[in-house]
Amino acid sequence: MIGNTVIIVAGGRGLRMGQDIPKQFIRVGGRPVLMHTMEQFYGYDDSIEIILVLPEDQFSYWKALCRKFDFQMRHQLVRGGETRYNSVKNGLEVVSGELVAVHDGVRPFVAPETIKRCFHAAEIYGAVIPVMELVDSIRKVNGPNSEMRPRYAYRSIQTPQVFRTSVLKKAYELPFSPDFTDDASVVEAAGYEITLVEGNRENVKITTPFDLVVAEAFLKSK
Amino acid sequence: MIGNTVIIVAGGRGLRMGQDIPKQFIRVGGRPVLMHTMEQFYGYDDSIEIILVLPEDQFSYWKALCRKFDFQMRHQLVRGGETRYNSVKNGLEVVSGELVAVHDGVRPFVAPETIKRCFHAAEIYGAVIPVMELVDSIRKVNGPNSEMRPRYAYRSIQTPQVFRTSVLKKAYELPFSPDFTDDASVVEAAGYEITLVEGNRENVKITTPFDLVVAEAFLKSK
Repeated sequence: MIGNTVIIVAGGRGLRMGQDIPKQFIRVGGRPVLMHTMEQFYGYDDSIEIILVLPEDQFSYWKALCRKFDFQMRHQLVRGGETRYNSVKNGLEVVSGELVAVHDGVRPFVAPETIKRCFHAAEIYGAVIPVMELVDSIRKVNGPNSEMRPRYAYRSIQTPQVFRTSVLKKAYELPFSPDFTDDASVVEAAGYEITLVEGNRENVKITTPFDLVVAEAFLKSK
Repeated sequence: MIGNTVIIVAGGRGLRMGQDIPKQFIRVGGRPVLMHTMEQFYGYDDSIEIILVLPEDQFSYWKALCRKFDFQMRHQLVRGGETRYNSVKNGLEVVSGELVAVHDGVRPFVAPETIKRCFHAAEIYGAVIPVMELVDSIRKVNGPNSEMRPRYAYRSIQTPQVFRTSVLKKAYELPFSPDFTDDASVVEAAGYEITLVEGNRENVKITTPFDLVVAEAFLKSK
C-alpha cells in the first residue's frame, strides 16, 4: 500500500468567532474541532501519517488539550508560517508518504468517502480536489458594477486537496504569490492539471458562530 | 408609507429531500417551513401584501395546513407555472404594492435586517438583491478542464430580491430565457442596473436533509 500523509493546517487566531480561543480549538460535541478532523483521516487509513501545522505559540495549549481529552492519535507538530502557503511548505518538509493531503483543520465533517475519492484519484492523476456544485446563484463584482454568472459553470472548492508528494513539493518551490488561495492554485501555477472529484455537503469550514450551531446539530444527528 | 408586496415562490415537489411532502411544507421547529418564511416578512411590515405562489394541486393541502396550525396571516394564493419565471409572472399580475419583493419559500431564516436593507435600497435604486461573500474558493469548469477564480470577486445571491413594481413588471414582459436564473437576471436583461446589499449568513435555502438539520439547530439557538 502506498504511504499516505495528511497535513492539517490550523492557523486560526480565532478573531472571527468572537471567542477567546482560536477556532481550531473550539469545542464541538464537547471536544476541540481539530480532534474530530484528525479522526476522520484515521477513519480512512489508521496508518496515515498526520502532520499538524499550528502557530508555534499554540503548541503547549494543544498538548494540554491532548492530555485533557486523552487524545492518543499519533501526529507530528510543525510550526506554522506567516501565511497558509508558508505553513503548508513547513509541513511538506517532513512528509514521508507518497501521497499527501492538505486539509483545513476546521473542516471536521469531511466524509470518509470524500477522503477516499481524493486519495484514489490522486494515485492516478497526481493532483485532486473535492468540489461541490453551487447552491446559490453568483455574480461577479467589478467596482460598483456586477454581472450574473452561470452557476452551473462553477464549483466551490473544499479540502482535502490530495497530491503525489513529488508534485506538491515541486509546486511549492515557486515563490509565494497572493494568488495562491489554496494548494491547487500553487500546483496549477507550476504547470500541473487539477482533477475534480465530488466532495460532501457537510464538509464546511467552521468559521462563524452560525457554523458552530450547524456543527453541533450535525454531530447530534449522526 | 409606500405599499410593500412580497411574492413568495414555492414550487417544490420535494424530490431532492427524499421525503413524501414538498420541501416548502416540511416541518421545522414543528411547523411548515413556509409559515416561518411568511412570518419574517410580517415581522418587517405587518401591512405587507403577501402573495404565495404554489402549484395549484397543493392549494388544498396548504389550506388544510393553515387550519391545522391555526395560521392566520392574510395572504393571497396564486397558481404556480411550469418554471419559476412563470410563477413569478403569475404572482406579478395581482401585486398592488409600489415595491415588490420576490422571495424563495424555502429561505425561512432571512433576517428582518436583510428585508429592511433590500426594501429601503429598492425605494432609491429600483432593483436590489442581497448577496454574501463566498466562504470557499471557486473554480470555473469548462468540459474536463477547470480554472481558479478569485473568490473575492464573486458574491453568492440570496433573496428577497426587491424591485419597484413598475421595473419588475416591465422586465417580465421579456419572453422566457433559460438564462433567467433569478429575478435580477430578468431585470438586468431588460436593461436595468442591479444594486447589491448585504444578506445574512443564515438565509440559506432548505433543500437537503443536511439543511433541515441546520434549520432545526438554528431555530433552537434563537
